[in-house]
Amino acid sequence: MSPPHTVFYGTFIDLPRTKSGHKHVLSVRYGALWVSANGTIQGVDWTVGSDSDLHALLRRKGWVGKVHLVRAQSSQNEFFFPGFIDTHIHAPQYPNSGLFGSSTLLEWLERYTFPMESSFGSTSNPSLLTGNAFRVYNQTIARTLSHGTTYAAYYATIHVPATQILASLCLERGQKALIGRVCMDNSTTCPDDYRDASPAASLSDNEAVIAYIRGIDPSGALVKPILTPRFALSCSDTAMRAIADQATRHASEDGAPLHIQTHISENTAEIDAVRLFFPQQDTYAGVYDEYGLLTPRTILAHAVHLTPKERELISARGAKISHCPTSNSALGSGLCPVRHILDAGLTVGLGTDVSGGYSMSVLEAVRQACLVSRLVRFAASPGDEEEGKRMVLSVEEALYLATRGGAAVVDAADQVGGFDKGMLFDAQLVRLGPGVEKGISGKESPVDVFGWESWEEKVYKWVWNGDDRNVKGVWVNGRLVHSRGDIGGETGGRLLRWVLGLGVVGVGAVVAWRSRR
Amino acid sequence: MSPPHTVFYGTFIDLPRTKSGHKHVLSVRYGALWVSANGTIQGVDWTVGSDSDLHALLRRKGWVGKVHLVRAQSSQNEFFFPGFIDTHIHAPQYPNSGLFGSSTLLEWLERYTFPMESSFGSTSNPSLLTGNAFRVYNQTIARTLSHGTTYAAYYATIHVPATQILASLCLERGQKALIGRVCMDNSTTCPDDYRDASPAASLSDNEAVIAYIRGIDPSGALVKPILTPRFALSCSDTAMRAIADQATRHASEDGAPLHIQTHISENTAEIDAVRLFFPQQDTYAGVYDEYGLLTPRTILAHAVHLTPKERELISARGAKISHCPTSNSALGSGLCPVRHILDAGLTVGLGTDVSGGYSMSVLEAVRQACLVSRLVRFAASPGDEEEGKRMVLSVEEALYLATRGGAAVVDAADQVGGFDKGMLFDAQLVRLGPGVEKGISGKESPVDVFGWESWEEKVYKWVWNGDDRNVKGVWVNGRLVHSRGDIGGETGGRLLRWVLGLGVVGVGAVVAWRSRR
Repeated sequence: MSPPHTVFYGTFIDLPRTKSGHKHVLSVRYGALWVSANGTIQGVDWTVGSDSDLHALLRRKGWVGKVHLVRAQSSQNEFFFPGFIDTHIHAPQYPNSGLFGSSTLLEWLERYTFPMESSFGSTSNPSLLTGNAFRVYNQTIARTLSHGTTYAAYYATIHVPATQILASLCLERGQKALIGRVCMDNSTTCPDDYRDASPAASLSDNEAVIAYIRGIDPSGALVKPILTPRFALSCSDTAMRAIADQATRHASEDGAPLHIQTHISENTAEIDAVRLFFPQQDTYAGVYDEYGLLTPRTILAHAVHLTPKERELISARGAKISHCPTSNSALGSGLCPVRHILDAGLTVGLGTDVSGGYSMSVLEAVRQACLVSRLVRFAASPGDEEEGKRMVLSVEEALYLATRGGAAVVDAADQVGGFDKGMLFDAQLVRLGPGVEKGISGKESPVDVFGWESWEEKVYKWVWNGDDRNVKGVWVNGRLVHSRGDIGGETGGRLLRWVLGLGVVGVGAVVAWRSRR
Repeated sequence: MSPPHTVFYGTFIDLPRTKSGHKHVLSVRYGALWVSANGTIQGVDWTVGSDSDLHALLRRKGWVGKVHLVRAQSSQNEFFFPGFIDTHIHAPQYPNSGLFGSSTLLEWLERYTFPMESSFGSTSNPSLLTGNAFRVYNQTIARTLSHGTTYAAYYATIHVPATQILASLCLERGQKALIGRVCMDNSTTCPDDYRDASPAASLSDNEAVIAYIRGIDPSGALVKPILTPRFALSCSDTAMRAIADQATRHASEDGAPLHIQTHISENTAEIDAVRLFFPQQDTYAGVYDEYGLLTPRTILAHAVHLTPKERELISARGAKISHCPTSNSALGSGLCPVRHILDAGLTVGLGTDVSGGYSMSVLEAVRQACLVSRLVRFAASPGDEEEGKRMVLSVEEALYLATRGGAAVVDAADQVGGFDKGMLFDAQLVRLGPGVEKGISGKESPVDVFGWESWEEKVYKWVWNGDDRNVKGVWVNGRLVHSRGDIGGETGGRLLRWVLGLGVVGVGAVVAWRSRR
C-alpha cells in the first residue's frame, strides 16, 4: 500500500455513535491518524503517545520523508475535532446578518430578505467572478470555513448564474456543499420582481444548475445539487409536484433521489397561512407529503411547532430535520422541543439559518441549542420538573447534532462527522491557547484555560466561549482549506521546524498541494 | 478655564433617556467632545465635521499643543459608545465559565461554585499579589475591560484579604466597581468549610473591607464597597437584619445608605426553599423587606419569577433589578419577563452573572436579553400575539439597559451611561473594521460591513456578531484603561502620526498618564 498523504498527530475528540437511549459522551483519544491523498482516514494508532513513538511509527511503516505531518500541540491546548455541518444556511442573506430588528418571520422576509436575494439577479455570467454574488458568496464561504464548517446545505437565490457561482466557489475553496437554487413561483405570495416565471421555468432552471454542478464536480466529492422549494407558501402545487418528480428522475444508481430542502413549521403565523392555503391537508407536513416532497433525502428546516402526528409522518418517510435555534430565538419563532423530535426517531442536525440566524457559527448554534433546550420546559411542559430536565440537550448531545447528526441529515453519516477509519477527514484543529498560567492574555483566544481542566471541561469552555479565533485549521477531504493567519507564523512555523527535523517537507507542500486544485 | 485633557473626535452613539412609554432610539452624532483631567465631559461641538473643523476648534479655544486627541475613524467604521455596566458578576467564578453542564442552580452551586470560591481563602495578605485570588481577579478585570465593561458590581468571596485584592486590582487597572465581600453564615445551608463564622463575624469582616476600600479610594472615584448577603437561604435572620443596619450606619452625608446586592427569585426550586425557610412571609421579596434589605441602593439579581405583588413592593422601596439572561438561559432558570418589570416602574440593568452566565461580555447579555424577550411570550403569554410582541426588547432598549439602565442600577445615572455634558467619560471605542469592500478579511473583526449600512444597522451588526475584537479602546473617568494590541500598531500609530502632525503628543502621553496612577 502506498504511504498516506498526511499523518495527523495529537488529541482527537469526537462524538461516537450511541445506542438509542444511551448518553452521548466525548471520545478523547491521543495518537496518530493517517489520511490518503483523496482524504480517506486509512488508519489510526492510539498507542502513539510521544514524538518518539511517532518517529517509530513512521520508521516502521517506511513513511519517513514521504508524508506530511500535522500535529495538535498539547501545550497550546489544541485538539482535532470533526468539521461542523451546517444543515441550513441561506448564503445570499449573509450581508443581512444581525438585521432582523424586532420583526418576525413574514415581516422580515419582506423587509430584508427578498430585496437582498433579488439583487443577485444582476449577475449574468458565472465565469465572470465579480458583482454582488461573487463578493457575498466568497465572503460567506470564507466566514463559514473560518468557523469550522466543512459541509453546508446552502440555499442560494432563484438565479441560475449566481447559483452556479456559489457552486464554483465552494469547489474552488474546497468546502463541501449542497447547492440549492431557490424555487418560488407562487404569484400570490412571492414578490413580482423575485420569483420563477412558471413551474416549467422552475424545473428548467433547476436542470441548468444540476447540469452545471455535475459538470464541474462529476463525482460530487465536494458539491452536489439540492432541489429547494422555498416553502409551501411560495410554491405552486404544480411546481411542488414537479420538483418531487425531478428528484426521482435524477436518482443516483443506487436509487437515492436528489436531495431536497425546504422549511417547515417555523412560525405560528406561517402555519396558520399554510392551513389557509392548503385546506385539503390538516397538517403542514401533510402538504409536503401530498406532493411527494418527504423523502429520505429531504431536509426540513425548523420544525419548531410540529404536532406528534407530523413527527410520525416525517419519521415514516425518513425525512430529516435541521434544528435552527439561533434563528428561532432571534425571530421569536419559538422553542423547538428537540427531545420530542428525537423521541420520534427522527434524524436531527443543526443549522445556522443565516440570516434569520444572526451568526454563521455552528458553535453558536450548539450553544443556542443547549440554551433553548434548557428553556423549552417553561413553554412545553411547565411544572413538570422531570420532563423539563429530560428536554435538556447536554453539550455532548448538541455537539453530536453538529457533527454526526448533521452528517446523517445530508445523508453522509458513513462519510463524515467523526474520526472513524474509512471516513473522509473533514476536521478542524481547535486551539484554546497556552492558558492563563503562561501570563495574562486573551487577545488571541476568547477561552481561558487555567490548567486544572479535564479535556471534557476544555471542550465545554470552547463550546461556551470559543469562536473562530480558536479554529486554527480546517480540512475537507484531507485538504487544508482554512487556516488562521498565525498558523503560518507560530503554529505553522513550529510545525515546519518540527517537520523539517524529521526530514519531511511540511507547510510548504501543504500550500502547494492546496494551490494545485 | 484651563484646557481639557483630551478631545475625542468622530462618531458618538448613545441611548438618550426617553419619556416613559416612548421608544428607545440610538443617538448618532458626529463631532468633538472634550474631557477634563478628572474625566468630566466639559463640552461638545456637534458642528465639527472634518479635520479642518477640528483644527479650527482647537485654534479658537487656544488648545493647540495642549490637549490629547483621540478619534474614531469613519473609514474603519469606528464609533464611541458608552462603557457597559455589568450589574451582577461573581469575579471568583470566572475560571468556571462554561462549566455548568446540565445542572440547575442549586446543584451547580455545590459542584462548581462553592469549591472554587472556597479556594480563595488561602490568600492571607492583600499586599501580596500572588495566588489564586490575584491571578483570577486580575484576569477577570482584564477580560471584562476587554469587553468594554467600565463599571461592575462584583461579588467576591467571603474572604477579607481576597476581597481587598479585588478592590486594589480594580483601582490599579482603573475599572469602576462595587466590591462585595459575600456574607453567608447560615450553617444549615452553607458548606462547613465555606461560611462566615457568625453574624458578628459577617459584620466585622464587612467593616474590614469597607475600611480598606475607603482607605485606598477615599473619594470612591473608582471603587466602593457593597454589602452582599449572598441570598436569603444562605444568611441567618440576624445577619440579614444587621447588614441592613450596617448599610444605614455607613450612609453618606446625603443620607444614601451603602449599596447592597443580593439574589432574588432566580429559580423555582430556590423560591420553594425560601417559602419553606421563611414561612412567615408569603413572597421572596417580602423576606428581604422584612429584614430591611430593600433600599433604593439595593441591587436584586435575576428576578425571573417575581409575582406582580413583589414587583410592586420592590418598586415601592426603590430597589433595582439586574437582569441576567445569559445565566437564566444557561442554568435553565427561566424566561424573565422584563417588560412586566419595566411596566411596574422598576429600574433595570443587565448582568452577566459569571459564571452562572458563561460569558463576561455585556454585549452577549444584550443579545441574550433580546433573545429571551422574543421567546418569553411562549411561556408568559402563549397565544396572545400582541402581548407577545410587546414583550420584545428592541436592540436599542437592550443597549439602554446595558448603559443608562445599569448606571441607574448602581445609582450613578447622573454620572455615567451616556455622553451628556457633565457626565464622566466612561466609554469604549468600537471598531467594526474597514468592511468587505476593502477585500476579503474577517480575522480582525467578526463583523462584516458591506458599505450600504446605516449607522443603526452597523450597531445592530455589532450587537449580534461583535465581540472583544471590536473593542479597540476603553476609557474610565477619561483614562485609557484597555486597548487592543493593534491599537498601538495600526490605529494607535495612525493616531500618533495624526496627532504629531498637530504638534500634540498623543499615545505616549496617554500611556504616561495611565501609568501615573
